[in-house]
Amino acid sequence: MKRARRPAQPHAEGHRVWIIPDAYLPVLTAEDEAKRAAGRGYWSHESLCVINTGPKRASLTLTFYFEDRAPVKNIRVTVGAERTRHIRFDKPEELGGFEVPAGVPYALRVESDVPVVVQHSRLDTTQPNCASLSVMAHPIR
Amino acid sequence: MKRARRPAQPHAEGHRVWIIPDAYLPVLTAEDEAKRAAGRGYWSHESLCVINTGPKRASLTLTFYFEDRAPVKNIRVTVGAERTRHIRFDKPEELGGFEVPAGVPYALRVESDVPVVVQHSRLDTTQPNCASLSVMAHPIR
Amino acid sequence: MKRARRPAQPHAEGHRVWIIPDAYLPVLTAEDEAKRAAGRGYWSHESLCVINTGPKRASLTLTFYFEDRAPVKNIRVTVGAERTRHIRFDKPEELGGFEVPAGVPYALRVESDVPVVVQHSRLDTTQPNCASLSVMAHPIR
Amino acid sequence: MKRARRPAQPHAEGHRVWIIPDAYLPVLTAEDEAKRAAGRGYWSHESLCVINTGPKRASLTLTFYFEDRAPVKNIRVTVGAERTRHIRFDKPEELGGFEVPAGVPYALRVESDVPVVVQHSRLDTTQPNCASLSVMAHPIR
Repeated sequence: MKRARRPAQPHAEGHRVWIIPDAYLPVLTAEDEAKRAAGRGYWSHESLCVINTGPKRASLTLTFYFEDRAPVKNIRVTVGAERTRHIRFDKPEELGGFEVPAGVPYALRVESDVPVVVQHSRLDTTQPNCASLSVMAHPIR
Repeated sequence: MKRARRPAQPHAEGHRVWIIPDAYLPVLTAEDEAKRAAGRGYWSHESLCVINTGPKRASLTLTFYFEDRAPVKNIRVTVGAERTRHIRFDKPEELGGFEVPAGVPYALRVESDVPVVVQHSRLDTTQPNCASLSVMAHPIR
Repeated sequence: MKRARRPAQPHAEGHRVWIIPDAYLPVLTAEDEAKRAAGRGYWSHESLCVINTGPKRASLTLTFYFEDRAPVKNIRVTVGAERTRHIRFDKPEELGGFEVPAGVPYALRVESDVPVVVQHSRLDTTQPNCASLSVMAHPIR
Repeated sequence: MKRARRPAQPHAEGHRVWIIPDAYLPVLTAEDEAKRAAGRGYWSHESLCVINTGPKRASLTLTFYFEDRAPVKNIRVTVGAERTRHIRFDKPEELGGFEVPAGVPYALRVESDVPVVVQHSRLDTTQPNCASLSVMAHPIR
């Protein structure tokens, strides 16, 4: 007898703790600033991209680590059930008001109350054209 | 006695579920559109690259997750036995007619009936020169 | 009592089978060809980067998978003990004479007789400036 | 009864041994050299980005592997407790005086006395605009 295909129930997939060692928000150039003011075109930024495949909202706690000062802890963001969020690090309003310092090396730890998957990407337009990089975050548990 | 080297039988390697949090199809510029119409040169696109090292065809089901609406499920693609496919996300004909919305953050879940390996790459030509990024998808199981 | 630090004996680290789904050797432009002929400057290429941290030479067997034809198997390369090799895929002499076809999507499987670590990188100079991407290969076993 | 949220004690997360097969420090152009001398703008470099989430300082030992000569071992760097460091490979003063040779393929092994997470990034400005790539290092143990 052919087994009926079970309807795909959403369930949370991934890990609860993820780490990104190389984070860096480029300082905006004058041209970048003009684009940002107009809200059009590309300017340097980083995005923390999270996917929550599960049936309940994910509550994330971010920790920002620096080279020469204590970490900034407890920055909160949420990702809805069966939704993705690409959180822009150049927009404090997406980080509960926290302003990520530009031009400073930092690193990131993401902790979620449910399993998620996390990727980190950077677009750099400091020079006339853009350079981009992206890594899957490193899963801890 | 020297053991004879067994002939390499193809077998499926990898995982059945893979996730990509950072997907984004850039909006084409006028120059991109001209290249696309002519079918020559580079224009912005994403590719989902799958390899099936096994002896039977892989049937994949893609789910597209968005920031502000319900996921689009059950997009089907296949990858032949001992073949690779680099599926272009700017070509609906490679996704059973599904048009991936451009200029919108999304995320992706890939499920296969046999183990495969999945990588996701983006080429962005919004500015005069191209920027590229690529990640191995995150394996779930 | 402070325990003496043992001298670091070289030992092979990593995995024996690695997979890369997204491989693509860009077609050289006229400018690329001129640089290649002169042996100076950047032209599009891919590199398979292997590190062998162990005390004996690694013998690797590469399989090239395509979209529409049977895989090419048994391409052999070696990496010395405690050495790295960045194998250029635009140079048939580094692949036992095998010419990787340009302008064609393919994928790659690497098998080694001892554990190694494998990374795959691409430089694309099709447009006036370069775009680069790199991924750690996916370890199978 | 709702369980009190325990205060987050810093603890070391990640792995003690990490490997990067594709390392390459581009030769600086005349323009790069001028920027470097002025200490302003972008010039080609690599960064080894390490995060130490734990309560004690991490002592790292780097080994540099080459294609045609014995590895250079025992280069030491440290990363403070709850700190990140983005170690520039074009700056010998950040590597205990070791000068990473430019224009030469190499690979890298990182060993730490406590768990850390390691990412490796390259910026290449050999052509007029920059290209960047980044990978999470491969964890061994």
